[in-house]
Amino acid sequence: MGLTYQMKMKIPFDMADMNGHIKLPDVILLSLQVSGMQSINLGVSDKDVLEQYNLVWIITDYDIDVVRLPQFAEEITIETEALTYNRLFCYRRFTIYDEAGQEIIRMVATFVLMDRDSRKVHPVEPEIVAPYQSEFSKKLLRGPKYADLEEAISKDYHVRFYDLDMNGHVNNSKYLDWVFEVMGADFLTNHIPKKINLKYVKEVRPGGMITSSYELNQLESNHQVTSDGDINAQAKIIWQEINTD
Amino acid sequence: MGLTYQMKMKIPFDMADMNGHIKLPDVILLSLQVSGMQSINLGVSDKDVLEQYNLVWIITDYDIDVVRLPQFAEEITIETEALTYNRLFCYRRFTIYDEAGQEIIRMVATFVLMDRDSRKVHPVEPEIVAPYQSEFSKKLLRGPKYADLEEAISKDYHVRFYDLDMNGHVNNSKYLDWVFEVMGADFLTNHIPKKINLKYVKEVRPGGMITSSYELNQLESNHQVTSDGDINAQAKIIWQEINTD
Repeated sequence: MGLTYQMKMKIPFDMADMNGHIKLPDVILLSLQVSGMQSINLGVSDKDVLEQYNLVWIITDYDIDVVRLPQFAEEITIETEALTYNRLFCYRRFTIYDEAGQEIIRMVATFVLMDRDSRKVHPVEPEIVAPYQSEFSKKLLRGPKYADLEEAISKDYHVRFYDLDMNGHVNNSKYLDWVFEVMGADFLTNHIPKKINLKYVKEVRPGGMITSSYELNQLESNHQVTSDGDINAQAKIIWQEINTD
Repeated sequence: MGLTYQMKMKIPFDMADMNGHIKLPDVILLSLQVSGMQSINLGVSDKDVLEQYNLVWIITDYDIDVVRLPQFAEEITIETEALTYNRLFCYRRFTIYDEAGQEIIRMVATFVLMDRDSRKVHPVEPEIVAPYQSEFSKKLLRGPKYADLEEAISKDYHVRFYDLDMNGHVNNSKYLDWVFEVMGADFLTNHIPKKINLKYVKEVRPGGMITSSYELNQLESNHQVTSDGDINAQAKIIWQEINTD
Protein backbone atom coordinates (compact mmCIF):
# COMPACT_ATOMS: atom_id res chain seq x y z
CA MET A 1 0.00 0.00 0.00
CA GLY A 2 1.22 3.45 -0.86
CA LEU A 3 1.13 6.42 1.47
CA THR A 4 -2.14 8.28 1.41
CA TYR A 5 -2.61 12.04 1.41
CA GLN A 6 -5.83 13.94 2.06
CA MET A 7 -7.30 17.39 1.55
CA LYS A 8 -10.58 18.54 3.04
CA MET A 9 -12.56 21.35 1.38
CA LYS A 10 -15.98 22.85 0.75
CA ILE A 11 -17.26 23.11 -2.81
CA PRO A 12 -17.17 26.84 -3.67
CA PHE A 13 -19.98 28.55 -5.59
CA ASP A 14 -18.00 28.88 -8.79
CA MET A 15 -17.41 25.11 -9.02
CA ALA A 16 -21.13 24.32 -8.97
CA ASP A 17 -23.14 23.80 -12.15
CA MET A 18 -26.81 24.63 -12.77
CA ASN A 19 -27.86 21.64 -10.70
CA GLY A 20 -25.59 22.63 -7.83
CA HIS A 21 -23.27 19.70 -8.61
CA ILE A 22 -19.52 20.09 -8.79
CA LYS A 23 -18.36 20.45 -12.41
CA LEU A 24 -16.51 17.30 -13.45
CA PRO A 25 -13.47 19.15 -14.87
CA ASP A 26 -13.06 20.75 -11.42
CA VAL A 27 -12.88 17.25 -9.90
CA ILE A 28 -9.84 16.62 -12.12
CA LEU A 29 -8.26 19.97 -11.22
CA LEU A 30 -8.77 19.46 -7.49
CA SER A 31 -7.46 15.91 -7.52
CA LEU A 32 -4.31 17.05 -9.33
CA GLN A 33 -3.85 19.75 -6.69
CA VAL A 34 -3.97 17.01 -4.04
CA SER A 35 -1.45 14.73 -5.75
CA GLY A 36 0.74 17.79 -6.38
CA MET A 37 0.62 18.61 -2.67
CA GLN A 38 1.54 15.04 -1.75
CA SER A 39 4.54 15.21 -4.09
CA ILE A 40 5.72 18.48 -2.55
CA ASN A 41 5.30 16.97 0.91
CA LEU A 42 7.41 13.95 -0.01
CA GLY A 43 10.17 16.07 -1.54
CA VAL A 44 9.51 15.01 -5.13
CA SER A 45 7.55 17.98 -6.43
CA ASP A 46 6.93 18.46 -10.15
CA LYS A 47 9.53 21.22 -10.00
CA ASP A 48 12.14 18.86 -8.48
CA VAL A 49 11.38 16.17 -11.05
CA LEU A 50 11.77 18.65 -13.88
CA GLU A 51 14.95 20.26 -12.57
CA GLN A 52 16.69 17.05 -11.50
CA TYR A 53 15.57 14.65 -14.24
CA ASN A 54 14.17 16.86 -17.03
CA LEU A 55 10.98 14.78 -16.73
CA VAL A 56 7.32 15.73 -16.39
CA TRP A 57 4.41 13.62 -15.19
CA ILE A 58 1.61 13.25 -17.68
CA ILE A 59 -1.67 11.37 -17.43
CA THR A 60 -2.65 8.89 -20.13
CA ASP A 61 -5.91 7.38 -18.82
CA TYR A 62 -8.69 8.02 -16.35
CA ASP A 63 -11.17 5.48 -15.02
CA ILE A 64 -13.80 7.30 -12.96
CA ASP A 65 -16.75 5.90 -11.02
CA VAL A 66 -19.35 8.30 -9.74
CA VAL A 67 -21.84 7.30 -7.05
CA ARG A 68 -23.03 10.88 -6.76
CA LEU A 69 -21.59 14.34 -7.34
CA PRO A 70 -20.96 16.56 -4.31
CA GLN A 71 -23.04 19.73 -4.11
CA PHE A 72 -22.24 23.42 -3.58
CA ALA A 73 -21.05 24.09 0.01
CA GLU A 74 -20.78 20.38 0.79
CA GLU A 75 -17.62 19.36 2.64
CA ILE A 76 -15.60 16.66 0.93
CA THR A 77 -12.31 14.90 1.57
CA ILE A 78 -10.14 14.07 -1.42
CA GLU A 79 -7.72 11.23 -0.75
CA THR A 80 -4.95 10.04 -3.04
CA GLU A 81 -2.63 7.05 -3.03
CA ALA A 82 0.02 5.86 -5.48
CA LEU A 83 -1.13 2.25 -5.97
CA THR A 84 1.44 0.34 -8.01
CA TYR A 85 3.96 0.96 -10.76
CA ASN A 86 5.60 -1.08 -13.49
CA ARG A 87 8.28 -0.30 -16.04
CA LEU A 88 6.35 2.53 -17.68
CA PHE A 89 3.12 3.19 -15.81
CA CYS A 90 2.21 4.44 -12.35
CA TYR A 91 -1.35 3.99 -11.13
CA ARG A 92 -2.81 6.43 -8.67
CA ARG A 93 -6.15 6.38 -6.90
CA PHE A 94 -8.23 9.44 -5.98
CA THR A 95 -11.21 8.89 -3.72
CA ILE A 96 -13.72 11.56 -2.74
CA TYR A 97 -15.55 11.00 0.52
CA ASP A 98 -18.54 12.94 1.79
CA GLU A 99 -18.84 14.21 5.36
CA ALA A 100 -20.29 10.89 6.52
CA GLY A 101 -17.20 9.13 5.17
CA GLN A 102 -19.08 7.57 2.24
CA GLU A 103 -17.10 7.09 -0.97
CA ILE A 104 -18.86 9.15 -3.64
CA ILE A 105 -16.28 9.34 -6.46
CA ARG A 106 -13.39 7.02 -7.21
CA MET A 107 -10.83 7.64 -9.95
CA VAL A 108 -7.80 5.71 -11.06
CA ALA A 109 -5.35 7.71 -13.15
CA THR A 110 -2.44 6.31 -15.14
CA PHE A 111 0.68 8.47 -14.96
CA VAL A 112 3.81 8.24 -17.08
CA LEU A 113 7.02 10.23 -17.02
CA MET A 114 7.81 12.13 -20.21
CA ASP A 115 11.14 13.58 -21.23
CA ARG A 116 10.65 17.30 -21.51
CA ASP A 117 12.77 17.68 -24.65
CA SER A 118 12.15 14.52 -26.68
CA ARG A 119 8.45 14.43 -25.62
CA LYS A 120 8.83 10.65 -25.36
CA VAL A 121 7.75 8.40 -22.52
CA HIS A 122 10.58 7.69 -20.08
CA PRO A 123 10.78 4.52 -17.95
CA VAL A 124 9.78 4.99 -14.32
CA GLU A 125 12.72 6.16 -12.21
CA PRO A 126 12.75 4.15 -8.96
CA GLU A 127 14.10 7.12 -6.93
CA ILE A 128 11.21 9.29 -8.08
CA VAL A 129 8.51 6.84 -7.03
CA ALA A 130 10.16 5.42 -3.89
CA PRO A 131 8.89 8.17 -1.54
CA TYR A 132 5.26 7.28 -2.32
CA GLN A 133 5.86 3.70 -1.04
CA SER A 134 3.78 2.16 -3.79
CA GLU A 135 4.54 -1.40 -4.89
CA PHE A 136 6.09 -2.65 -8.08
CA SER A 137 3.64 -4.88 -9.93
CA LYS A 138 3.81 -6.18 -13.47
CA LYS A 139 0.05 -6.07 -13.71
CA LEU A 140 -1.14 -3.61 -16.37
CA LEU A 141 -4.47 -1.88 -16.00
CA ARG A 142 -6.06 -1.77 -19.41
CA GLY A 143 -8.80 0.64 -20.36
CA PRO A 144 -11.79 -0.42 -22.46
CA LYS A 145 -11.73 -0.69 -26.22
CA TYR A 146 -12.95 2.64 -27.54
CA ALA A 147 -15.48 2.49 -30.34
CA ASP A 148 -15.01 4.17 -33.71
CA LEU A 149 -17.64 6.82 -34.28
CA GLU A 150 -19.82 6.37 -37.33
CA GLU A 151 -22.61 8.93 -37.22
CA ALA A 152 -21.26 11.34 -34.69
CA ILE A 153 -22.62 14.70 -33.64
CA SER A 154 -19.79 17.24 -33.56
CA LYS A 155 -18.99 20.73 -32.44
CA ASP A 156 -15.82 22.79 -32.88
CA TYR A 157 -14.10 24.60 -30.02
CA HIS A 158 -11.31 27.15 -30.01
CA VAL A 159 -8.25 26.17 -28.04
CA ARG A 160 -8.00 29.21 -25.78
CA PHE A 161 -4.99 30.91 -24.21
CA TYR A 162 -6.36 30.14 -20.77
CA ASP A 163 -6.72 26.44 -21.69
CA LEU A 164 -2.92 26.23 -21.66
CA ASP A 165 -0.76 25.61 -18.64
CA MET A 166 2.73 26.90 -17.88
CA ASN A 167 4.28 24.34 -20.22
CA GLY A 168 2.02 25.41 -23.08
CA HIS A 169 -0.02 22.20 -22.79
CA VAL A 170 -3.76 21.99 -22.77
CA ASN A 171 -4.80 21.21 -19.22
CA ASN A 172 -6.02 17.62 -18.71
CA SER A 173 -9.33 18.80 -17.35
CA LYS A 174 -10.05 20.69 -20.56
CA TYR A 175 -10.55 17.52 -22.60
CA LEU A 176 -13.28 16.43 -20.22
CA ASP A 177 -14.79 19.88 -20.60
CA TRP A 178 -15.02 19.44 -24.40
CA VAL A 179 -16.33 15.88 -24.02
CA PHE A 180 -19.14 17.04 -21.73
CA GLU A 181 -19.91 20.35 -23.38
CA VAL A 182 -20.82 18.82 -26.74
CA MET A 183 -23.67 16.88 -25.08
CA GLY A 184 -25.61 20.13 -24.71
CA ALA A 185 -27.25 21.86 -21.76
CA ASP A 186 -30.50 19.86 -21.85
CA PHE A 187 -28.73 16.54 -21.57
CA LEU A 188 -26.30 17.78 -18.90
CA THR A 189 -29.14 19.22 -16.86
CA ASN A 190 -30.77 15.79 -16.63
CA HIS A 191 -27.85 13.37 -16.51
CA ILE A 192 -24.65 12.85 -14.59
CA PRO A 193 -21.96 10.30 -15.41
CA LYS A 194 -21.90 6.97 -13.63
CA LYS A 195 -18.68 5.76 -15.23
CA ILE A 196 -16.11 7.57 -17.37
CA ASN A 197 -13.16 6.10 -19.25
CA LEU A 198 -10.92 8.65 -20.87
CA LYS A 199 -7.76 8.05 -22.86
CA TYR A 200 -5.33 10.76 -23.91
CA VAL A 201 -3.90 9.77 -27.28
CA LYS A 202 -2.06 12.80 -28.62
CA GLU A 203 -1.59 16.28 -27.23
CA VAL A 204 -3.79 19.05 -28.63
CA ARG A 205 -1.56 21.79 -30.00
CA PRO A 206 -1.97 25.35 -28.74
CA GLY A 207 -4.00 27.66 -30.98
CA GLY A 208 -6.49 26.52 -33.59
CA MET A 209 -9.59 24.43 -33.07
CA ILE A 210 -10.56 20.98 -31.87
CA THR A 211 -13.64 18.98 -32.76
CA SER A 212 -15.54 17.21 -30.00
CA SER A 213 -17.72 14.36 -31.37
CA TYR A 214 -20.04 11.87 -29.76
CA GLU A 215 -22.58 9.15 -30.36
CA LEU A 216 -25.20 8.51 -27.73
CA ASN A 217 -26.92 5.16 -27.47
CA GLN A 218 -29.41 4.94 -24.61
CA LEU A 219 -27.32 5.83 -21.57
CA GLU A 220 -23.92 5.14 -23.10
CA SER A 221 -21.92 7.67 -25.12
CA ASN A 222 -18.70 7.29 -27.09
CA HIS A 223 -16.51 10.32 -27.67
CA GLN A 224 -13.58 11.61 -29.67
CA VAL A 225 -11.62 14.83 -29.50
CA THR A 226 -9.84 15.40 -32.81
CA SER A 227 -7.73 18.11 -34.45
CA ASP A 228 -5.76 18.32 -37.70
CA GLY A 229 -7.01 14.85 -38.67
CA ASP A 230 -5.67 13.14 -35.53
CA ILE A 231 -7.46 11.65 -32.54
CA ASN A 232 -6.38 13.53 -29.41
CA ALA A 233 -8.57 11.76 -26.87
CA GLN A 234 -11.26 9.09 -26.66
CA ALA A 235 -13.85 8.57 -24.00
CA LYS A 236 -16.70 6.26 -23.10
CA ILE A 237 -19.30 7.38 -20.59
CA ILE A 238 -22.17 5.57 -18.93
CA TRP A 239 -24.77 8.05 -17.70
CA GLN A 240 -27.37 8.07 -14.95
CA GLU A 241 -30.51 10.18 -14.95
CA ILE A 242 -30.51 12.74 -12.19
CA ASN A 243 -33.95 12.22 -10.70
CA THR A 244 -34.24 8.47 -10.95
CA ASP A 245 -31.56 7.58 -8.40
CA MET B 1 -14.08 51.52 7.92
CA GLY B 2 -15.70 48.17 7.27
CA LEU B 3 -14.58 44.89 8.78
CA THR B 4 -11.85 43.19 6.82
CA TYR B 5 -11.60 39.51 6.03
CA GLN B 6 -8.56 37.65 4.70
CA MET B 7 -7.69 34.38 3.01
CA LYS B 8 -4.16 33.15 2.48
CA MET B 9 -3.37 30.69 -0.35
CA LYS B 10 -0.78 29.46 -2.81
CA ILE B 11 -1.45 29.79 -6.52
CA PRO B 12 -2.11 26.23 -7.77
CA PHE B 13 -0.70 24.95 -11.06
CA ASP B 14 -4.03 25.02 -12.86
CA MET B 15 -4.50 28.75 -12.22
CA ALA B 16 -1.22 29.68 -13.90
CA ASP B 17 -1.05 30.75 -17.56
CA MET B 18 1.79 30.16 -20.02
CA ASN B 19 3.85 32.85 -18.32
CA GLY B 20 3.28 31.34 -14.91
CA HIS B 21 1.00 34.27 -13.97
CA ILE B 22 -2.36 33.76 -12.32
CA LYS B 23 -5.18 33.90 -14.88
CA LEU B 24 -7.18 37.10 -14.39
CA PRO B 25 -10.59 35.36 -14.35
CA ASP B 26 -9.30 33.25 -11.45
CA VAL B 27 -8.55 36.46 -9.53
CA ILE B 28 -12.26 37.29 -9.81
CA LEU B 29 -13.33 33.79 -8.76
CA LEU B 30 -11.00 33.75 -5.75
CA SER B 31 -12.00 37.20 -4.59
CA LEU B 32 -15.68 36.22 -4.74
CA GLN B 33 -14.87 33.15 -2.66
CA VAL B 34 -13.34 35.46 -0.05
CA SER B 35 -16.28 37.86 0.10
CA GLY B 36 -18.60 34.85 0.19
CA MET B 37 -16.69 33.49 3.17
CA GLN B 38 -16.89 36.85 4.95
CA SER B 39 -20.66 36.90 4.42
CA ILE B 40 -21.05 33.39 5.84
CA ASN B 41 -18.90 34.39 8.82
CA LEU B 42 -21.06 37.43 9.51
CA GLY B 43 -24.31 35.45 9.28
CA VAL B 44 -25.46 37.08 6.03
CA SER B 45 -24.54 34.40 3.51
CA ASP B 46 -25.87 34.51 -0.05
CA LYS B 47 -28.17 31.67 0.97
CA ASP B 48 -29.57 33.66 3.92
CA VAL B 49 -30.09 36.74 1.76
CA LEU B 50 -31.94 34.70 -0.84
CA GLU B 51 -34.10 32.79 1.63
CA GLN B 52 -34.96 35.72 3.90
CA TYR B 53 -35.25 38.55 1.36
CA ASN B 54 -35.51 36.85 -2.05
CA LEU B 55 -32.53 38.99 -3.07
CA VAL B 56 -29.24 38.14 -4.75
CA TRP B 57 -26.02 40.15 -4.87
CA ILE B 58 -24.83 41.01 -8.35
CA ILE B 59 -21.79 42.96 -9.48
CA THR B 60 -22.17 45.84 -11.91
CA ASP B 61 -18.64 47.27 -12.20
CA TYR B 62 -15.03 46.39 -11.58
CA ASP B 63 -12.12 48.78 -11.29
CA ILE B 64 -8.88 46.77 -11.12
CA ASP B 65 -5.31 48.00 -10.71
CA VAL B 66 -2.51 45.54 -11.27
CA VAL B 67 1.01 46.22 -10.07
CA ARG B 68 2.06 42.69 -10.93
CA LEU B 69 0.39 39.30 -11.24
CA PRO B 70 1.27 36.63 -8.68
CA GLN B 71 3.04 33.55 -10.02
CA PHE B 72 2.46 29.80 -9.71
CA ALA B 73 3.20 28.53 -6.16
CA GLU B 74 3.49 32.08 -4.79
CA GLU B 75 1.71 32.69 -1.49
CA ILE B 76 -0.77 35.53 -1.55
CA THR B 77 -3.24 37.03 0.89
CA ILE B 78 -6.59 38.22 -0.44
CA GLU B 79 -8.23 40.83 1.75
CA THR B 80 -11.71 42.23 1.35
CA GLU B 81 -13.60 45.09 2.97
CA ALA B 82 -17.06 46.55 2.38
CA LEU B 83 -16.16 50.21 1.92
CA THR B 84 -19.32 52.33 1.75
CA TYR B 85 -22.89 52.01 0.58
CA ASN B 86 -25.59 54.38 -0.63
CA ARG B 87 -29.22 53.89 -1.59
CA LEU B 88 -28.49 51.42 -4.38
CA PHE B 89 -24.79 50.62 -4.49
CA CYS B 90 -22.33 48.88 -2.19
CA TYR B 91 -18.62 49.29 -2.85
CA ARG B 92 -16.23 46.55 -1.84
CA ARG B 93 -12.45 46.48 -1.98
CA PHE B 94 -10.31 43.40 -2.70
CA THR B 95 -6.58 43.72 -2.17
CA ILE B 96 -4.04 41.04 -2.97
CA TYR B 97 -0.80 41.17 -1.03
CA ASP B 98 2.35 39.19 -1.72
CA GLU B 99 4.34 37.40 0.98
CA ALA B 100 6.30 40.57 1.76
CA GLY B 101 3.02 42.40 2.39
CA GLN B 102 3.24 44.45 -0.80
CA GLU B 103 -0.05 45.33 -2.49
CA ILE B 104 0.07 43.77 -5.95
CA ILE B 105 -3.58 43.89 -7.11
CA ARG B 106 -6.37 46.18 -5.96
CA MET B 107 -9.97 45.88 -7.12
CA VAL B 108 -13.07 47.84 -6.27
CA ALA B 109 -16.31 46.06 -7.12
CA THR B 110 -19.76 47.64 -7.18
CA PHE B 111 -22.46 45.36 -5.77
CA VAL B 112 -26.22 45.77 -5.98
CA LEU B 113 -29.06 43.68 -4.63
CA MET B 114 -31.41 42.26 -7.23
CA ASP B 115 -34.87 40.86 -6.65
CA ARG B 116 -34.75 37.24 -7.70
CA ASP B 117 -38.16 37.25 -9.37
CA SER B 118 -38.51 40.71 -10.92
CA ARG B 119 -34.77 40.78 -11.88
CA LYS B 120 -34.83 44.47 -10.89
CA VAL B 121 -32.37 46.29 -8.67
CA HIS B 122 -33.57 46.51 -5.07
CA PRO B 123 -32.52 49.32 -2.69
CA VAL B 124 -29.87 48.34 -0.16
CA GLU B 125 -31.43 46.75 2.94
CA PRO B 126 -29.75 48.23 6.05
CA GLU B 127 -30.03 44.95 7.99
CA ILE B 128 -28.18 43.09 5.25
CA VAL B 129 -25.23 45.47 5.16
CA ALA B 130 -25.02 46.33 8.87
CA PRO B 131 -22.87 43.31 9.82
CA TYR B 132 -20.08 44.47 7.48
CA GLN B 133 -19.83 47.77 9.41
CA SER B 134 -19.32 49.81 6.27
CA GLU B 135 -20.39 53.44 6.24
CA PHE B 136 -23.28 55.10 4.46
CA SER B 137 -21.98 57.67 2.00
CA LYS B 138 -23.82 59.49 -0.74
CA LYS B 139 -20.68 59.55 -2.84
CA LEU B 140 -21.10 57.59 -6.07
CA LEU B 141 -18.10 55.94 -7.68
CA ARG B 142 -18.43 56.41 -11.39
CA GLY B 143 -16.62 54.29 -13.94
CA PRO B 144 -15.04 55.77 -17.06
CA LYS B 145 -16.96 56.58 -20.20
CA TYR B 146 -16.71 53.54 -22.42
CA ALA B 147 -15.88 54.20 -26.07
CA ASP B 148 -18.04 53.04 -28.97
CA LEU B 149 -16.16 50.63 -31.17
CA GLU B 150 -15.75 51.61 -34.78
CA GLU B 151 -13.40 49.17 -36.46
CA ALA B 152 -13.42 46.36 -33.99
CA ILE B 153 -11.86 42.92 -34.28
CA SER B 154 -14.38 40.31 -33.16
CA LYS B 155 -14.65 36.65 -32.33
CA ASP B 156 -17.70 34.55 -31.44
CA TYR B 157 -17.84 32.28 -28.42
CA HIS B 158 -20.36 29.63 -27.39
CA VAL B 159 -21.97 30.18 -24.02
CA ARG B 160 -21.18 26.82 -22.41
CA PHE B 161 -23.06 24.79 -19.84
CA TYR B 162 -20.13 25.10 -17.47
CA ASP B 163 -20.14 28.90 -17.89
CA LEU B 164 -23.40 28.95 -15.93
CA ASP B 165 -23.74 29.03 -12.18
CA MET B 166 -26.43 27.50 -9.99
CA ASN B 167 -28.81 30.31 -10.83
CA GLY B 168 -28.36 29.78 -14.55
CA HIS B 169 -26.32 32.99 -14.83
CA VAL B 170 -23.07 33.34 -16.67
CA ASN B 171 -20.36 33.62 -14.04
CA ASN B 172 -18.90 37.14 -13.68
CA SER B 173 -15.40 35.91 -14.34
CA LYS B 174 -16.46 34.54 -17.73
CA TYR B 175 -16.92 38.01 -19.24
CA LEU B 176 -13.33 38.83 -18.42
CA ASP B 177 -12.34 35.54 -20.01
CA TRP B 178 -14.03 36.56 -23.29
CA VAL B 179 -12.57 40.08 -23.10
CA PHE B 180 -9.04 38.70 -22.72
CA GLU B 181 -9.32 35.71 -25.00
CA VAL B 182 -10.15 37.75 -28.10
CA MET B 183 -6.77 39.53 -27.82
CA GLY B 184 -5.03 36.35 -28.94
CA ALA B 185 -2.21 34.25 -27.52
CA ASP B 186 0.65 36.39 -28.91
CA PHE B 187 -0.63 39.55 -27.29
CA LEU B 188 -1.45 37.83 -23.99
CA THR B 189 1.98 36.22 -23.87
CA ASN B 190 3.64 39.62 -23.98
CA HIS B 191 1.24 41.87 -22.05
CA ILE B 192 -0.54 41.97 -18.75
CA PRO B 193 -3.18 44.51 -17.72
CA LYS B 194 -2.20 47.53 -15.67
CA LYS B 195 -5.74 48.84 -15.24
CA ILE B 196 -9.10 47.27 -16.06
CA ASN B 197 -12.51 48.90 -15.99
CA LEU B 198 -15.38 46.52 -16.64
CA LYS B 199 -19.08 47.29 -16.66
CA TYR B 200 -21.83 44.68 -16.76
CA VAL B 201 -24.72 46.11 -18.77
CA LYS B 202 -27.09 43.23 -19.44
CA GLU B 203 -26.94 39.56 -18.53
CA VAL B 204 -25.85 37.13 -21.25
CA ARG B 205 -28.56 34.52 -21.72
CA PRO B 206 -27.73 30.83 -21.37
CA GLY B 207 -27.17 28.96 -24.64
CA GLY B 208 -26.28 30.58 -27.94
CA MET B 209 -23.27 32.70 -28.75
CA ILE B 210 -21.68 35.96 -27.69
CA THR B 211 -19.36 38.20 -29.68
CA SER B 212 -16.27 39.61 -28.03
CA SER B 213 -14.98 42.71 -29.84
CA TYR B 214 -12.04 45.02 -29.24
CA GLU B 215 -10.04 47.91 -30.61
CA LEU B 216 -6.42 48.26 -29.59
CA ASN B 217 -4.67 51.60 -29.71
CA GLN B 218 -1.08 51.46 -28.49
CA LEU B 219 -1.41 50.06 -24.97
CA GLU B 220 -5.09 50.84 -24.49
CA SER B 221 -7.93 48.58 -25.60
CA ASN B 222 -11.69 49.10 -25.64
CA HIS B 223 -14.00 46.11 -25.47
CA GLN B 224 -17.59 45.02 -25.92
CA VAL B 225 -19.33 41.74 -25.28
CA THR B 226 -22.54 41.60 -27.30
CA SER B 227 -25.31 39.10 -28.06
CA ASP B 228 -28.64 39.29 -29.88
CA GLY B 229 -27.89 42.92 -30.80
CA ASP B 230 -27.42 44.08 -27.20
CA ILE B 231 -24.32 45.16 -25.33
CA ASN B 232 -23.77 42.80 -22.39
CA ALA B 233 -20.54 44.28 -21.07
CA GLN B 234 -18.01 46.97 -21.81
CA ALA B 235 -14.40 47.21 -20.77
CA LYS B 236 -11.38 49.44 -21.06
CA ILE B 237 -7.92 48.06 -20.38
CA ILE B 238 -4.54 49.71 -20.12
CA TRP B 239 -1.77 47.19 -20.73
CA GLN B 240 1.83 46.87 -19.68
CA GLU B 241 4.46 44.90 -21.56
CA ILE B 242 5.74 41.96 -19.58
CA ASN B 243 9.48 42.38 -19.91
CA THR B 244 9.78 46.13 -19.64
CA ASP B 245 8.80 46.47 -16.00
